[in-house]
Amino acid sequence: MNPLRAKELAEQLLAGDKRATARLITHVENREPNVEQALTKIYPHTGNAHLVGITGPPGAGKSTMTDKLIRLARAAGKKVGVVCVDPSSPFSGGAILGDRIRMQEHAADSEVFIRSIGTRGGQGGLSRSTQEVAMLLDASGYDLVILETAGVGQTELGILEVAHTIMVVLVPESGDDIQMMKAGILEIADILTVNKCDRQGADHVVKELRAMLELVDGKQAWKIPVLKTSAERGEGIKEVFTMMGEHREFLKNSGQIAQKRLHFAKTAILHIVRDVAALSVEDRLRSAKGLALLEEVSRRKIDPFTAAEKLFR
Amino acid sequence: MNPLRAKELAEQLLAGDKRATARLITHVENREPNVEQALTKIYPHTGNAHLVGITGPPGAGKSTMTDKLIRLARAAGKKVGVVCVDPSSPFSGGAILGDRIRMQEHAADSEVFIRSIGTRGGQGGLSRSTQEVAMLLDASGYDLVILETAGVGQTELGILEVAHTIMVVLVPESGDDIQMMKAGILEIADILTVNKCDRQGADHVVKELRAMLELVDGKQAWKIPVLKTSAERGEGIKEVFTMMGEHREFLKNSGQIAQKRLHFAKTAILHIVRDVAALSVEDRLRSAKGLALLEEVSRRKIDPFTAAEKLFR
Repeated sequence: MNPLRAKELAEQLLAGDKRATARLITHVENREPNVEQALTKIYPHTGNAHLVGITGPPGAGKSTMTDKLIRLARAAGKKVGVVCVDPSSPFSGGAILGDRIRMQEHAADSEVFIRSIGTRGGQGGLSRSTQEVAMLLDASGYDLVILETAGVGQTELGILEVAHTIMVVLVPESGDDIQMMKAGILEIADILTVNKCDRQGADHVVKELRAMLELVDGKQAWKIPVLKTSAERGEGIKEVFTMMGEHREFLKNSGQIAQKRLHFAKTAILHIVRDVAALSVEDRLRSAKGLALLEEVSRRKIDPFTAAEKLFR
Repeated sequence: MNPLRAKELAEQLLAGDKRATARLITHVENREPNVEQALTKIYPHTGNAHLVGITGPPGAGKSTMTDKLIRLARAAGKKVGVVCVDPSSPFSGGAILGDRIRMQEHAADSEVFIRSIGTRGGQGGLSRSTQEVAMLLDASGYDLVILETAGVGQTELGILEVAHTIMVVLVPESGDDIQMMKAGILEIADILTVNKCDRQGADHVVKELRAMLELVDGKQAWKIPVLKTSAERGEGIKEVFTMMGEHREFLKNSGQIAQKRLHFAKTAILHIVRDVAALSVEDRLRSAKGLALLEEVSRRKIDPFTAAEKLFR
């Protein structure tokens, strides 16, 4: 893509052209040259959307929940963007595809935009792509942007880091794992839901989570709610939707939104810096001098730290 | 850790002290200050171990396979290091713990070193930690170093990138997913095994994989073998072990080992460069000038690309 085309697509996106948005997302995903030109252009128009991250174990019903949340948001007159991020293995691809298809019934709704992004790009690439795709949807006028992923591992945390509000969806069966994931969940969740609450053990898990939160989270200004839902039956979803709005209000009223914005800005800058540094060093490694240095490192004549220092200056 | 202590631990590691090795691994995992001093010191002593990456879907029997491979390697007089890398969510923590415990029967064997590393550190951090832990074990005299992880997602690929030989462990039930993971697997596997081969569909999956490989992989010098195993019963593991050795010989005889070494060197350098660049920019962002810039980005007065450029110079 040449820089002119990038700017043109950005203008079309700002004018509400869905196809331009879709193309720019693909360009971000593929790290197309000059996509920065488009992102630079749309950046001043970002900052209006509510970015909500949703995570939880596979099979917890995240996509069904998202589906129901889309309906509620649409009923409230909001435009909704959904980014399904799949950092994990293609081993679990089947189930995810099914979920996506379920959500596609919204595809006909011109005020809903659903897109999956996957494992292309290098390390940390998915967190950068997710943030940039969220920016595109934000600038494009989507009021609510849902970032859906699975798990709370390294890659997923990077993805969720770019959201205002993080919801973790659990199921009654998660009970056994709660001790293990305690740290991870409490560090990231703004809202907890126990989905499939018609199954055995739901009340017990809710109680356990609340007890845990009381212990650890006593002094926090935002009390993390633990909600019971059945996304399949549509139970408790209104409460979730309301709570999402309340968390946003809380961020605004407490002034924490400014902190979040600074954090997002820092994250965006660091994504860029890491990639630019790596690209420029990769470039230098392709030169005769760079190749000789690489050879020396591979022969253990020089260590990678010293080599990095030489290259980095 | 002060630089002197780092060098002292490195010396102890090189002298074969297991406790020093364990401590340095912890320091790498936590990105302890001055751990670089230790890595720089041990680096010239690396390059002897055979680094084998093992991946596959959860429940494919990777840990049982690793357990059996340890026995064979020990019987062949080799010292074995195992790094279990868990980039995924604590949601699946339970099963993994069980596997680890199974392997711990080797803990009494002073020539076997088993260690799990998890989700600490930032993005791409796990790939860097894995490579550095492999260096520590390599320098410490372990002949075979197994890097075990699950999945072929972004983080896992980063982990496997630092291995000479990559084995993907599948099960008969993986059949349905094969189409989906085709690309991912063929790009990374040097050896494919269909484990739990007493289950229905094993022969079919083996056949399918071989047909697939013939189509795509016709011109490669290394013919990716597809082996049937039952790690639980100890069937086919000798063939796997032999094949690992053959792949190593192939790398040496074909000269591809030199390519791998250059790639490892580049990977190590890029890990360092990305982190150093990010740290130095984070530092600058903490200054009054940096904070003002961050504020401007968060208020959309300036875009992150321009800010990164300003900071990076």
